[in-house]
Amino acid sequence: MRGLPDPILDLIDALERLPGVGPKTASRLAFHLVKGTDDLPQSLAQALISLRSNIKSCPNCFNIMDASREMCDICSDPNRNEQVICVVEEPLDALMLERAGVFDGHYHVLQGVLSPIEGIGPEDIRIDALVERVTTGKVAEVILATNPSMEGDATALYIRQVLQKSSIKITRLARGLPTGSDLEYADQNTLLRALTGRQEMQ
Amino acid sequence: MRGLPDPILDLIDALERLPGVGPKTASRLAFHLVKGTDDLPQSLAQALISLRSNIKSCPNCFNIMDASREMCDICSDPNRNEQVICVVEEPLDALMLERAGVFDGHYHVLQGVLSPIEGIGPEDIRIDALVERVTTGKVAEVILATNPSMEGDATALYIRQVLQKSSIKITRLARGLPTGSDLEYADQNTLLRALTGRQEMQ
Repeated sequence: MRGLPDPILDLIDALERLPGVGPKTASRLAFHLVKGTDDLPQSLAQALISLRSNIKSCPNCFNIMDASREMCDICSDPNRNEQVICVVEEPLDALMLERAGVFDGHYHVLQGVLSPIEGIGPEDIRIDALVERVTTGKVAEVILATNPSMEGDATALYIRQVLQKSSIKITRLARGLPTGSDLEYADQNTLLRALTGRQEMQ
Repeated sequence: MRGLPDPILDLIDALERLPGVGPKTASRLAFHLVKGTDDLPQSLAQALISLRSNIKSCPNCFNIMDASREMCDICSDPNRNEQVICVVEEPLDALMLERAGVFDGHYHVLQGVLSPIEGIGPEDIRIDALVERVTTGKVAEVILATNPSMEGDATALYIRQVLQKSSIKITRLARGLPTGSDLEYADQNTLLRALTGRQEMQ
């Protein structure tokens, strides 16, 4: 690009590699970072540098955790219900459930999802470790909270199959209309799920 | 937030300070940066660190430029038409015009806009320097390309007033319907401008 100094071009290039950030957003962010007089570029750079070296996967649930600790906050919290394991695809999914404050059990982060197209099989995600956790005997229920997508559904089905020999209760998150949405805009499949999953009003 | 390690919390905090990035986007970006195995966090950190120290304002047009140079690429380019100066609010505006490749003159970056509410007066933006450039005698036309907003219009009006003693041609970017848009969704003011500014078809 004419007339644009290298330092800002480098920054735009790096920002464009973030998900959901196109050339225009990257330029806007870069110019915002140049313009300001605050410490934002420094803080951001510092956070980025210390990011991966200070984070690891929890050896029990595979959620992300502080690298200086033995086990993640949730796994080492005696107040959480260890009889229920909620299986999610990514650490972000566990975070969203934590933010909603709706679950007090343990998590198991698969770190991916079965995807024959991308060549990701059961051995590439943390299914074996889940089976191992379940067979310790403390677990009463496994909630399959993989995404309501083709891959998420297939992964949930696969895990149910693997675990069904055990006597553990296996559940899947409910499907239906999202709260605050409009029936008019719901897709066919969501309407079908909402209808077949209808519940008697109390 | 429970169960979230400090390094990622720091990163989410820093990302949230970017314009247009809310808590959800910040989390999504942070988790993307954690998850990957590429060098993105390092590249981004490097670009951020070298950003402000390697960039300065061009002493002539006040656009951003490489700090190691004397004058920006555009001001030092003998092939650009120095008889026309396009006055913009921010470096990003000049960049957008450059990207469109529609202008071959020089720029003047005001580095802001008149705003009585925010206490920004004529002495806070680069109007004096513009007057000085114009009075050198080489300039034949000043295009006022401040934003088509209340502040941008007021700034353009003010500059026209300051420059009208000189015999220079002063123009403002055309207002009307944006290409590819739909008349149905245009606001009243845009329609008014499009109608009053209508041009005879060739």
